[in-house]
Amino acid sequence: MTKLLQLYKDMPVYEKDTAKALIKGLRLQLLQLQFQVAKQDKPVILVIAGDDRAGRHETINTLMGWLDPRFIRVNAYGPAEKLDEQKPFFWRYWRDIPAGGHIGIYMRAWTSTSVVQYLNDDISGKKLKRRLAYIRQFEKSLHDDGALVVKIWLHLSKDAHQERVDEIRDTSFFDPKDELALKNFDKAIETIDHVLCETHSKDTPWHVISGEDPTSRNIHAGQTILQAMQKWLARAPVAVAAAEEYEAPPPADPNLLDSIDLSPEINKEEYDSSLKKYREQLHQLMDQAHEQGQAVVCVFEGVDAAGKGGAIRRVASAIDAGIYRIVPVAKPTDEEYAHHYLWRFWRHIPANGMMTIFDRSWYGRVLVERVEELATPEQWMRAYDEINDFEEQLTIHGIIVVKFWLHIDQDEQMARFKAREITPHKMHKITDEDYRNREKWPQYREAIHDMLEKTSSKKAPWTIIPAQDKKYARVEVVKTLVKALKEAL
Amino acid sequence: MTKLLQLYKDMPVYEKDTAKALIKGLRLQLLQLQFQVAKQDKPVILVIAGDDRAGRHETINTLMGWLDPRFIRVNAYGPAEKLDEQKPFFWRYWRDIPAGGHIGIYMRAWTSTSVVQYLNDDISGKKLKRRLAYIRQFEKSLHDDGALVVKIWLHLSKDAHQERVDEIRDTSFFDPKDELALKNFDKAIETIDHVLCETHSKDTPWHVISGEDPTSRNIHAGQTILQAMQKWLARAPVAVAAAEEYEAPPPADPNLLDSIDLSPEINKEEYDSSLKKYREQLHQLMDQAHEQGQAVVCVFEGVDAAGKGGAIRRVASAIDAGIYRIVPVAKPTDEEYAHHYLWRFWRHIPANGMMTIFDRSWYGRVLVERVEELATPEQWMRAYDEINDFEEQLTIHGIIVVKFWLHIDQDEQMARFKAREITPHKMHKITDEDYRNREKWPQYREAIHDMLEKTSSKKAPWTIIPAQDKKYARVEVVKTLVKALKEAL
Repeated sequence: MTKLLQLYKDMPVYEKDTAKALIKGLRLQLLQLQFQVAKQDKPVILVIAGDDRAGRHETINTLMGWLDPRFIRVNAYGPAEKLDEQKPFFWRYWRDIPAGGHIGIYMRAWTSTSVVQYLNDDISGKKLKRRLAYIRQFEKSLHDDGALVVKIWLHLSKDAHQERVDEIRDTSFFDPKDELALKNFDKAIETIDHVLCETHSKDTPWHVISGEDPTSRNIHAGQTILQAMQKWLARAPVAVAAAEEYEAPPPADPNLLDSIDLSPEINKEEYDSSLKKYREQLHQLMDQAHEQGQAVVCVFEGVDAAGKGGAIRRVASAIDAGIYRIVPVAKPTDEEYAHHYLWRFWRHIPANGMMTIFDRSWYGRVLVERVEELATPEQWMRAYDEINDFEEQLTIHGIIVVKFWLHIDQDEQMARFKAREITPHKMHKITDEDYRNREKWPQYREAIHDMLEKTSSKKAPWTIIPAQDKKYARVEVVKTLVKALKEAL
Repeated sequence: MTKLLQLYKDMPVYEKDTAKALIKGLRLQLLQLQFQVAKQDKPVILVIAGDDRAGRHETINTLMGWLDPRFIRVNAYGPAEKLDEQKPFFWRYWRDIPAGGHIGIYMRAWTSTSVVQYLNDDISGKKLKRRLAYIRQFEKSLHDDGALVVKIWLHLSKDAHQERVDEIRDTSFFDPKDELALKNFDKAIETIDHVLCETHSKDTPWHVISGEDPTSRNIHAGQTILQAMQKWLARAPVAVAAAEEYEAPPPADPNLLDSIDLSPEINKEEYDSSLKKYREQLHQLMDQAHEQGQAVVCVFEGVDAAGKGGAIRRVASAIDAGIYRIVPVAKPTDEEYAHHYLWRFWRHIPANGMMTIFDRSWYGRVLVERVEELATPEQWMRAYDEINDFEEQLTIHGIIVVKFWLHIDQDEQMARFKAREITPHKMHKITDEDYRNREKWPQYREAIHDMLEKTSSKKAPWTIIPAQDKKYARVEVVKTLVKALKEAL
């Protein structure tokens, strides 16, 4: 007994003249709404999915004719077996997320592909279950960020499906897979209904539309999109609406940062020999990782002047230059700013066999953006979940995620600022802003503490590096990477 | 008798102490120059290539240790046989062109890959010759735009090569290919020398460095880059330097545009039946093109209000939505603005089997940017060659390129502007700027004329569409596309 799919029965079928009149009005309204959408700073994401032969292509082609196609991008993905396995599952969908004011139509995307993968036994029931949780999180993340997500599922009854296959059986449109689909109809429908129910929510509901009468199908799809856009354009600012869902974290336990033992140091000889040893190991291990297709993500965060740059250089110059990239994270470009804040990090996720080193990262959301009030409380509060989900997408794909927090105390920081001011090739690194940031030390402490506490997972743990002694810190960083690679390879 | 490669013999080999002192000074200077580079609005492109076993990787790794690796991107390309054949040869190199102020190191890039392809018999001597012409044009284009291009070739003598292979013969570093390379040494060197000579120019010269002594090799490479950067940073504004090379086009022949017969029109019945017929053909042909991996690029340019949008919609809605993309070309994003002006178009070149429709295009350089003086005369004058080369890169890869110029006269334009002002859903399309542009009609005429005359090649011809009658224009556009596809498939 299907639950969501039965909804389609209630839909009217329109006579020719009624249809013509409805379409005329619909086109004009859709076109006008499209201009209003273009002025929004958030995108519209339309998912058009459905049963085999239910008319997904035709529906999308019709919508492209009704709307102005110049400002819509259709993102169509190959059959599941041809998916680029070099990157995490959601990578390609994130990559194609439209910028604010744009409309993206997704076909054969995350839901359809998951259904097909499950029906083809490419993923187990257990994996499907996990996948559905990720889909919920992905769509929630888009919705929470202010995007409109409209999901349409086109459905055909078994009889209608049979009829449609019979119609084309002797034409070039017929595909042996059609016969197979018909044979497996019941199992497919059961799976689809399960998947729809599990990914149906108040904010990103499924709209099930009958694919039987093509014209009525197109009208229903158009009306569904029209109504969703109208409601979205009239929405209250999203931050207010979402505020209740998130609670401020409990006051930070001040002890965590204070309890970091900053005393470790090593002498020059120890430094030279240890660094040499671990760098050689790192070189070999990364060559091996490259051969084996093992990807690595390194995140460097830390107090200003804690020595991130120096540590990164010791790591990078130990690795063959062709297999890693360093991504310095600063102010987003306007293209990046027009997207969900995680988009610009998804862009740089390494392919299998490669390493990406992030010099600062997505944690800016819960550090500088929180403290400087560049993100609203709702935004940074929900970011912990979003970040954990993001990193889980990486680790579940098999990527090693290593995150470093380089820590020094306030006195050491001041000493380094002063030293920078009198060193010719370091002067450019010190600005008034650095001193201003120092005044917000208590707020940063709290933000750092919350971050370390809420985003240290088993697969993507934080490694806190006491960096009062630069030599010690550099050796520790390289050593930690070596350990992580040894465990994984 | 080699010509360029023999240069390497004149290079000194440094003793250990000298080397140490030289490196210390070099590192400091390079690091300081790197900060100056970061303030430039043009990029630095370093090509590090060389014979097998001459130490390309080691040299790059060393440079990454000397410079600040966080602001350098190494672009390494797979072996020739693994090249992604979905896109034109130069596509990947354009994609990775650094933004202004950034440094990109290229390894196994356009020159090396061409040598390897030729030695492996993947491309013929004739193709190599053509490729070398493209390489000259590509590097010239980067240089003319103001980039610094430094090309280093690391060379080993036959004896040194033999020695190096002997050294590693019993280690895991040995590769059976080494033996083969040694056997084919003479032919390889002959090819390399030929390729270097053919791609050596005053502005983008090759620097041949001996790979025999690793430390001296690194120092020579570092010094070469240092000197090139110093010279580049002290350069005169590039536009002035390049000015002499380009001559203004002869005054436009006013007859070309006037000779366009704007009278053709068709009635409603003819329009409906012809459009239906050609759209159905287009649908089928594009399905076939998709199956066969045939890519298509459509360019729509035209007088304001000539009906580009309407024509594009008639084309787009005839094609299956999953296989085409429309790229509306407006103001560049800041990321695009920081790159060579062709970069943002290379980004959108279709993969095999896909169509990209450009709603306005790279021709903006020689139209609006010329007339509004957004590009210097040197920039738009050399753009004709650059554009012809760009389109040749597409057609040589097998992409169909169809370019439409939609033309109406001034009276018709005014009538359409007026009509837009009183049509609710078209009002947004008309601004004061449109009227201002009209005042520059004579300048635009000249620019249009030059463009049509200088960029209509056999493989990428302009199709001039008399668009006084919208119905006629739309049918002509779809018909032209159908014809182009029929000829190619």
